[in-house]
Amino acid sequence: MDREQFRAAAHAAIDDIINHFDTVPDRRVLPTIEPGYLRPQIPENPPLEPQKWSEIHADIESKIQPGLTHWQSPNFMAFFPASVTYPSILGEMYSAAFTAPAFNWICSPACTELETIIMDWVAKALALPECFLSTSANGGGGVIQGTASESVATMMIAARERRAREKTLAEGFKDGSVEYENRVCENRAKLVSISSDQTHSSTAKAALVAGTRFRSIPTKLEDNMELTGEAVRKVLEEIEADGLDPYYITLSMGTTNSCAVDRFAEVKTVLSEKESWKRIWVHIDAAYAGAALVADEYQHIAQNFAEGVDSFNMNMHKWLMVNFDASCLWVRNRTDLTNALDITPTYLRNPYSELGTVIDYRNWQISLGRRFRSLKIWFVMRTYGLNGLKAHVRNGISLGNIFADKVRSRSDLFEIVTTPAYGLTVLRVRNPAAAAAAGDVPNGTSEHKHIVQVDEKANELSKKVYELINSRGEVFLTSTVFAGTYSIRVVNGSAQAEEKHILRAFDIIVETTEEVLRGKQ
Amino acid sequence: MDREQFRAAAHAAIDDIINHFDTVPDRRVLPTIEPGYLRPQIPENPPLEPQKWSEIHADIESKIQPGLTHWQSPNFMAFFPASVTYPSILGEMYSAAFTAPAFNWICSPACTELETIIMDWVAKALALPECFLSTSANGGGGVIQGTASESVATMMIAARERRAREKTLAEGFKDGSVEYENRVCENRAKLVSISSDQTHSSTAKAALVAGTRFRSIPTKLEDNMELTGEAVRKVLEEIEADGLDPYYITLSMGTTNSCAVDRFAEVKTVLSEKESWKRIWVHIDAAYAGAALVADEYQHIAQNFAEGVDSFNMNMHKWLMVNFDASCLWVRNRTDLTNALDITPTYLRNPYSELGTVIDYRNWQISLGRRFRSLKIWFVMRTYGLNGLKAHVRNGISLGNIFADKVRSRSDLFEIVTTPAYGLTVLRVRNPAAAAAAGDVPNGTSEHKHIVQVDEKANELSKKVYELINSRGEVFLTSTVFAGTYSIRVVNGSAQAEEKHILRAFDIIVETTEEVLRGKQ
Repeated sequence: MDREQFRAAAHAAIDDIINHFDTVPDRRVLPTIEPGYLRPQIPENPPLEPQKWSEIHADIESKIQPGLTHWQSPNFMAFFPASVTYPSILGEMYSAAFTAPAFNWICSPACTELETIIMDWVAKALALPECFLSTSANGGGGVIQGTASESVATMMIAARERRAREKTLAEGFKDGSVEYENRVCENRAKLVSISSDQTHSSTAKAALVAGTRFRSIPTKLEDNMELTGEAVRKVLEEIEADGLDPYYITLSMGTTNSCAVDRFAEVKTVLSEKESWKRIWVHIDAAYAGAALVADEYQHIAQNFAEGVDSFNMNMHKWLMVNFDASCLWVRNRTDLTNALDITPTYLRNPYSELGTVIDYRNWQISLGRRFRSLKIWFVMRTYGLNGLKAHVRNGISLGNIFADKVRSRSDLFEIVTTPAYGLTVLRVRNPAAAAAAGDVPNGTSEHKHIVQVDEKANELSKKVYELINSRGEVFLTSTVFAGTYSIRVVNGSAQAEEKHILRAFDIIVETTEEVLRGKQ
Repeated sequence: MDREQFRAAAHAAIDDIINHFDTVPDRRVLPTIEPGYLRPQIPENPPLEPQKWSEIHADIESKIQPGLTHWQSPNFMAFFPASVTYPSILGEMYSAAFTAPAFNWICSPACTELETIIMDWVAKALALPECFLSTSANGGGGVIQGTASESVATMMIAARERRAREKTLAEGFKDGSVEYENRVCENRAKLVSISSDQTHSSTAKAALVAGTRFRSIPTKLEDNMELTGEAVRKVLEEIEADGLDPYYITLSMGTTNSCAVDRFAEVKTVLSEKESWKRIWVHIDAAYAGAALVADEYQHIAQNFAEGVDSFNMNMHKWLMVNFDASCLWVRNRTDLTNALDITPTYLRNPYSELGTVIDYRNWQISLGRRFRSLKIWFVMRTYGLNGLKAHVRNGISLGNIFADKVRSRSDLFEIVTTPAYGLTVLRVRNPAAAAAAGDVPNGTSEHKHIVQVDEKANELSKKVYELINSRGEVFLTSTVFAGTYSIRVVNGSAQAEEKHILRAFDIIVETTEEVLRGKQ
């Protein structure tokens, strides 16, 4: 492909991209194809001879588009949003052109240096405490990871090494000896990571990756599924009673199921009760809801992380207009990370790295190579400005409030299961018999008057409504289960989301519920 | 940024990209800036108000370009190449526009299905044995990872879990019991991964990630730095004598230092000598040189992987025209991988995944979310055709042969340290005194007549030549050390590389060597 062929193809691609965003609100959010739809359409073998771009291009619309799930649709209300905006795409274009697996400074200084600066920008935008800035006296700083799950796995590995080595040294073993290595391995085998049962599954998976034990801490609907200090103390005492060693905890700012915020102050108080507990690595998973910290009215929350927190993660690729991947991770003490991950062979040595005057991000992550991801963040932050980001987040929260109010207005049909937060509402369909027995719940207060109880009939109805809505594909929702209560999650953080979309979603939920209830009668 | 602003900005970006590739051969390959060059040029805080694209755009040329290392320059002869081509950039554009953290099938079926099909295409292009195809009876298949280091870490984790669980079950513990968990942890603590001392450092790092021990197996210049069966047997016996449990080995097809190829047949024979050794996970790291398998004359090598190999990795983003990241990983048995990494919470359940009719790649990797990376591979394979890929790889090998012959023609100045392979030549500057004592070595045969000996004077000269060349920045090389022998690596796999570039590099090396030798007199 020569330069003029590329220019023509790329211009057509830009038209396609604009057309894609223009038409995405009108496309069915979920594809209608069946598993295996694509294989019969693609030749079994790669072509021997070059093909023209016109042939390849045609296949994008005819073969790929029909198999896309449209995360940018304003009718996508499942999981959490996945942003993409025009300046972010420009970032990807330059990043691809400047390709360099920039594992250390010399391999592309601009890539490393912009990342350090931009991670400071993002930290400031979120009002994170000074300790997470690259310029902090404590040696903190940020790094762009691919995903929140990669971030949590990386933090758990750093925590595991910090704990196993500290403990082994404290026991009097000498670093570098065979006995030291044996003892580190024995000490690793006793380590237990913990998090609430509402924490994203990536924490449990990270424990598998790190090869350490994991215990899930139960939460309750009466606590709004928030992790309490008391529950943490209980599990820590159980772990120690079993002769094991708790070393890591994930605390959530915005759980996946319901955007619950763990009780940071309570948990930190418990962790300060014993010397060994003070050295438990505290990671804050704010992958989605952390974006809300750009809005002034949420920034007080960030003050919780000024002390007693080792790392904090927020994904710009969820709610902050940057396309996947852009997972922002900050650590309080970068040497905790590089102690665990630095292995420098001869061919990676260079005078800049040896002197410690530059950051080599390969020691901040599992992978060696890395993409130039700070470009797209830089472009997005400048194109929208902080005020643009604040407005976007506030729009999502406002749409959530509108939706939650609509749900409350139909307390004959629905119950809100957990406190709506960060644009996310979690509801279930009421069991009509139970609703009749309980009498009407006043509008707007259902979730404050009572805690929902497990109800098999409500579960069955909710599941049926949920499945029917998704099978029709006009909107896409996610379901979940809280301690036996089947629930439907609705969240809308798309860049194109407007009030009409959330109102239409509500109407669909009402109509489908009425249809299901009629069918049941 | 509205659609017309984007169109204008994207058209300008395309002009920039074309101009970048047109001018990259004439740019200095290494930047001249000093560490910290960028911070004074970027405001301390992100802007509050939106900025115009014209402002942002100007900064790319003025602030970012000066800090780039040009991996696509035909004068970049360091590390291994990092490709990027026009169709690959088109792939990134569509991938960004179709953003979806496609962690399971339903989250964007096209993303999952194209990946499965294209990984079969690439496997066929490399003539990999049938067992690695997604359609194989043994349940193999491919997945696109970010990097070779991510691939090796993921394989080691899968290997660790396979071994620790198999062993614990064989000992009679019941899965799910407390005793089973305790014993799995104890068994993990005994595990040892191994590889040759020439294996890329990502294997040692993966052992840190996986939290298991690691032993490096020495190689010798008289074996051309290839790992032998005998050396493997020796380390396995030592590990077992220490009461430990070898569970994983990386074998290299093309080591980083010298493109050595480990002696697969010998090692596999040794691994078949004991029942427990047969269950050692064998991973082939062919990150760079694996690309050569597209050329018919190398495809016989792939037959080594038909039996006794658990996983194989080749990075298209090195030598095969696809920009970073595109690390292709195949496993013989996908359940080895998913057994280690599958954790499915309620909110990730869906009927397609439950029925096992679709692949959920999140269980094939550390991260949950993933980008639509198969698009760019698809575009590149179709745009160039297999014949285009073969021609590109053969060009790199041919340039390497030309360069090696030039080095041999100056055996008065240089010695070739290891057998040139896959376009890579490793040389050192001769110690003039030693050269005079040894007499002339006939052209073209130096590396076959003798093994280089450690020579402090030759080390000093080679280091000086290497540092002088890189400081001048017309070409960029990498150095390495083989058992005390300081060496210079030269490899040129850039898409724009021509004979004139490698000849100019040779002239620079000769001129600089003569300058250093004059200075020494």
